[in-house]
Amino acid sequence: MSRASRFLRACRGLPVDTTPVWFMRQAGRYLPEYQATRARAGDFLTLCKTPELACEVTLQPVDRLGVDAAILFSDILLPLEAMGLPLSFTEQGPQLEPVRSEADIAALRVPDPEELGFVLETVRLCARALAGQVPLIGFAGAPFTLLSYAVEGKTGKQFEHTKRMLLSCPAAAHLLLERISDTIVALLRAQVAAGAQALQLFDSWIGVLGQEDYQVFAEPYLQRVLMALRSLGVPLIYFAHHAAALLPLLGRLPADVLALDWRLPLDQAAALLGGRRVLQGNLDPCVLLGPVAEIERRVRTILDQAAGLAGHVFNLGHGVLPSTPPAHAQAAVEAVHRLGARTGAAT
Amino acid sequence: MSRASRFLRACRGLPVDTTPVWFMRQAGRYLPEYQATRARAGDFLTLCKTPELACEVTLQPVDRLGVDAAILFSDILLPLEAMGLPLSFTEQGPQLEPVRSEADIAALRVPDPEELGFVLETVRLCARALAGQVPLIGFAGAPFTLLSYAVEGKTGKQFEHTKRMLLSCPAAAHLLLERISDTIVALLRAQVAAGAQALQLFDSWIGVLGQEDYQVFAEPYLQRVLMALRSLGVPLIYFAHHAAALLPLLGRLPADVLALDWRLPLDQAAALLGGRRVLQGNLDPCVLLGPVAEIERRVRTILDQAAGLAGHVFNLGHGVLPSTPPAHAQAAVEAVHRLGARTGAAT
Repeated sequence: MSRASRFLRACRGLPVDTTPVWFMRQAGRYLPEYQATRARAGDFLTLCKTPELACEVTLQPVDRLGVDAAILFSDILLPLEAMGLPLSFTEQGPQLEPVRSEADIAALRVPDPEELGFVLETVRLCARALAGQVPLIGFAGAPFTLLSYAVEGKTGKQFEHTKRMLLSCPAAAHLLLERISDTIVALLRAQVAAGAQALQLFDSWIGVLGQEDYQVFAEPYLQRVLMALRSLGVPLIYFAHHAAALLPLLGRLPADVLALDWRLPLDQAAALLGGRRVLQGNLDPCVLLGPVAEIERRVRTILDQAAGLAGHVFNLGHGVLPSTPPAHAQAAVEAVHRLGARTGAAT
Repeated sequence: MSRASRFLRACRGLPVDTTPVWFMRQAGRYLPEYQATRARAGDFLTLCKTPELACEVTLQPVDRLGVDAAILFSDILLPLEAMGLPLSFTEQGPQLEPVRSEADIAALRVPDPEELGFVLETVRLCARALAGQVPLIGFAGAPFTLLSYAVEGKTGKQFEHTKRMLLSCPAAAHLLLERISDTIVALLRAQVAAGAQALQLFDSWIGVLGQEDYQVFAEPYLQRVLMALRSLGVPLIYFAHHAAALLPLLGRLPADVLALDWRLPLDQAAALLGGRRVLQGNLDPCVLLGPVAEIERRVRTILDQAAGLAGHVFNLGHGVLPSTPPAHAQAAVEAVHRLGARTGAAT
């Protein structure tokens, strides 16, 4: 079995020679070659919007780390910009013109994916350059997470504006969630048409919702997006960050793979989800800062906890931290492949 | 039954006439009378360190809201200052001189509680002023949460410095956790001697730990602190924020009451904790921003979910937000008392 098929087979719950592994934010600031490309771009948004450079950073970790998948380099907020929300990045993180009223939201558009043509061109360049070496994962932010950025205008803390809208003006929230959902469905379809072989939805902030709000403001849109993408025939991965309280509900989602953070061991998570699921995760990204012996010990623990799953894709529980030594990320990939190897597995 | 006994009886799992209620940060910025007292103090630390003023703000919400307990107005970081870490508050929140090495930590002291005499004097003034009207709750930060502030030097985001210490220098982490534990045990004993009738440990950041790290770096110190306080004979409340993944482990803690955030319904939390427990919680503080009808509906839902518990103290799942209308907080208290009333309950 080659690196080309390991990740896609595991997503389907098929036998693999060893556990496939990739890392969220594997293309990023911890790599000196990324820093160099970003310096050439000048700023983060230009990097995202210049397909040749975005392709370059997408590919950088593939050989350096030996991971089993590449993930498109882009940003989850670009579709919001295309919907009509001016976007910038400052020292404080992303800044958007926030939408707080139904009128604000009614003025937002569902853009044609070609308006994000630079994203699609990056996908095409990456797919061509990878030439089947490893699959390319496309992605988008999940509806509630994107709503939270649109309403807060930045990364939320208490998510007061967001929750005030859910409580006081639910019709506005639903309208925004519909437009976001339609936008990301079209974008993700276009990513697959351009060459993406799997898709991940990032729900970084879903963990701020209680079960009731999740069922009203998140689940219906996740169902809608995932169902709209199923006919594409590529594995659909849903990443829910810090959402252990939602696991009994997340088990109902029509995703092929559920990606989880490090807080709950994967075997316990599987029990709460109910049914046999393919899971992705779940090393604490801070572990990559620590000694290599400790990285290896924790990789082994996770592989043991994943032994009874329908399938397992190794990943971090959140993105690679900028202070991560690249050699530690390499050591983690090597440990997963070595310790995850099955003797006599199908090829 | 009077307001005087409702809260303490519920903490013990004894019958009550209606569900007792108090709110974390019930003394705080959302109240104009708090703003006035703080303006007289000049700054936040002076307010904390001036017993007459700290007592004044402790008492303000008791009559205004009709809550069933008062909680000492203070800050969880003051014991770290007394241990030898210079503390200030800026626009960005609390700032401490961070400790990162074993040598830094070895230089920290376990202060005599009298070095926090202003806290104890505040407790005495409050206990005298309340005159048994409602009980006074004392508190401290839990060991891991205080460690995270000491090591990060501020409110953490990814808690990189903290986790790097746990992974790379566990002996330093254990030394710091021991000193913090000894400091808060002595302080909480002194708070009870000064008149506190219940104690709460705030573990605001425990939810960043996975189960393994919790068992190594948090649980032993929580056990130690709680066991050291049991002989005081006052109810011990442990608040774990955003920690649904730890619930199977939290059930082992020798606390009288477990206080939880809003993410998991209390009946589901009780099932994960195992055994019959008294729980405190768990309204999303953002709900107090919304319409009063919605507040009442959500109060009713929580009371229904709590119906089968060994006991229930109503609270928010986190602190009152500064933008909360005081009338909404009042409405929530009134709804809890009205909807939580038992007919024919013991008095």
